[in-house]
Amino acid sequence: MTESHSARTVFIVSDGTGITAETFSHAVLSQFEQVSFTPVRIPFIDGAEKAAEAVRRINRCADEEKQPPLVFSTLVNPEVAFVVRQANCSFLDLFGTFIRPLEEALGLKSSHSVGRSHMGGLGAQYQKRIEAINFTLAHDDGQYVRGLEQAEVILIGVSRCGKTPTSLYLAMQYAVKAANFPLIPEDFERGTLPATLAPYRKKLFGLSIDPKRLSEVRTQRRPDSKYATLEQCVYEVAKAERMMRIEGVPCLSTTARSIEEISTKVLEEIGLNRSSY
Amino acid sequence: MTESHSARTVFIVSDGTGITAETFSHAVLSQFEQVSFTPVRIPFIDGAEKAAEAVRRINRCADEEKQPPLVFSTLVNPEVAFVVRQANCSFLDLFGTFIRPLEEALGLKSSHSVGRSHMGGLGAQYQKRIEAINFTLAHDDGQYVRGLEQAEVILIGVSRCGKTPTSLYLAMQYAVKAANFPLIPEDFERGTLPATLAPYRKKLFGLSIDPKRLSEVRTQRRPDSKYATLEQCVYEVAKAERMMRIEGVPCLSTTARSIEEISTKVLEEIGLNRSSY
Repeated sequence: MTESHSARTVFIVSDGTGITAETFSHAVLSQFEQVSFTPVRIPFIDGAEKAAEAVRRINRCADEEKQPPLVFSTLVNPEVAFVVRQANCSFLDLFGTFIRPLEEALGLKSSHSVGRSHMGGLGAQYQKRIEAINFTLAHDDGQYVRGLEQAEVILIGVSRCGKTPTSLYLAMQYAVKAANFPLIPEDFERGTLPATLAPYRKKLFGLSIDPKRLSEVRTQRRPDSKYATLEQCVYEVAKAERMMRIEGVPCLSTTARSIEEISTKVLEEIGLNRSSY
Repeated sequence: MTESHSARTVFIVSDGTGITAETFSHAVLSQFEQVSFTPVRIPFIDGAEKAAEAVRRINRCADEEKQPPLVFSTLVNPEVAFVVRQANCSFLDLFGTFIRPLEEALGLKSSHSVGRSHMGGLGAQYQKRIEAINFTLAHDDGQYVRGLEQAEVILIGVSRCGKTPTSLYLAMQYAVKAANFPLIPEDFERGTLPATLAPYRKKLFGLSIDPKRLSEVRTQRRPDSKYATLEQCVYEVAKAERMMRIEGVPCLSTTARSIEEISTKVLEEIGLNRSSY
């Protein structure tokens, strides 16, 4: 038994993309650090034939690894789920497990219908999301100032502190129109926020970063530049943080935080209660 | 009882961002179409004090709405989960429910440790993700040809068919270096793929779209332009699809598909088995 603990294949079987189920399985499985898990997504399983093919794949894996793999299922259709459950595996039914208690809590029957979890390409929600992505791309790194009044948040901070990935995540996941604007040495010499931003003071949110980390990131981009030296990074970060403090702009460190965490903190701080996709 | 069915508040309580739990709750709750759900995320609940505050918030809501709200929990710490469970609510324990069966399947104890589900900002995985986002931004819309050999996939298609959001999602969610390149009327007149793309034939993946839908999207961008007319859209889409067929480039319609679905199909087709974040 003991050596079989070291590695495990995990199948994520879904009638949709399986992305949520995979992220969820990461989270739960991270509680078993002793094991190295290999996730394999099997998406779009929407009928008995595809389910049978998934079963064959799972059984092949069980034979090869001489132990039943884990299967996380988000199959909505109970008949399809029943087929997959017959595979030689430990079956974890993410969907079915919660439908019964929800039916009780709501006093209603579920519709057991497949593929509802993501809206297709024609929904108004989808449209909003694409618009937010386009807006964010156009207003990345202060490149385009027109239309800035439409921004729901404007991230500011020194070059390479994490503004771009955070803006894009906010747009992609929450349909938030997120612009971003760099703070550069010129601003620090002048000692005030860029004039362009003055009308949007309330939408500003600052990102900062540990200077050592910043120097590493910048070195990857432009090795041996003054821009990447620790000295320059210490200077810029100190000046930027001071400016935000004086101007009353809320500020968050991106060091050791994931893009998801930073984005969630930004939404909390600016008081946007936004649903994710 | 009957009228109380129409609307429900859903709290998502997590020690992390709660993003996965919220997406998951969407999927499950979409099975109850009769009810309109209002999701409220309560993130970063990592101690007894914050848990007590969450309980007060949930109870306030129960009083106001005169019915217990739903609570989806991904709290890892059993003591914190225990506190929240005492609220006046229907408590759905996404995490705890699966830990026990997993302990059995693996023959191991879980570590009950909080905040493992997303790597912080210093991991190698995070670095790969940021690199992919930077690559994708630099190679959006064919704007930058140098370094195209590093692309893992190059999406091609007519203007506004969905290349940019799909590329960004692939980068953000899977750390895939995804470039994209537009097919324009000039290419159709010449009748061959852009010469720049010739060395990367195997990395190409085509996106297409229903011409009517395309015309709508383009009209929003540039109303009353030739570019947005149905006639022009019909012409471009037909030419683009024909070119892909002749050149043997796999092609997928983005109409009525979510960004998640398109991205998953692209990964499947090009045979990249990539874990999501």
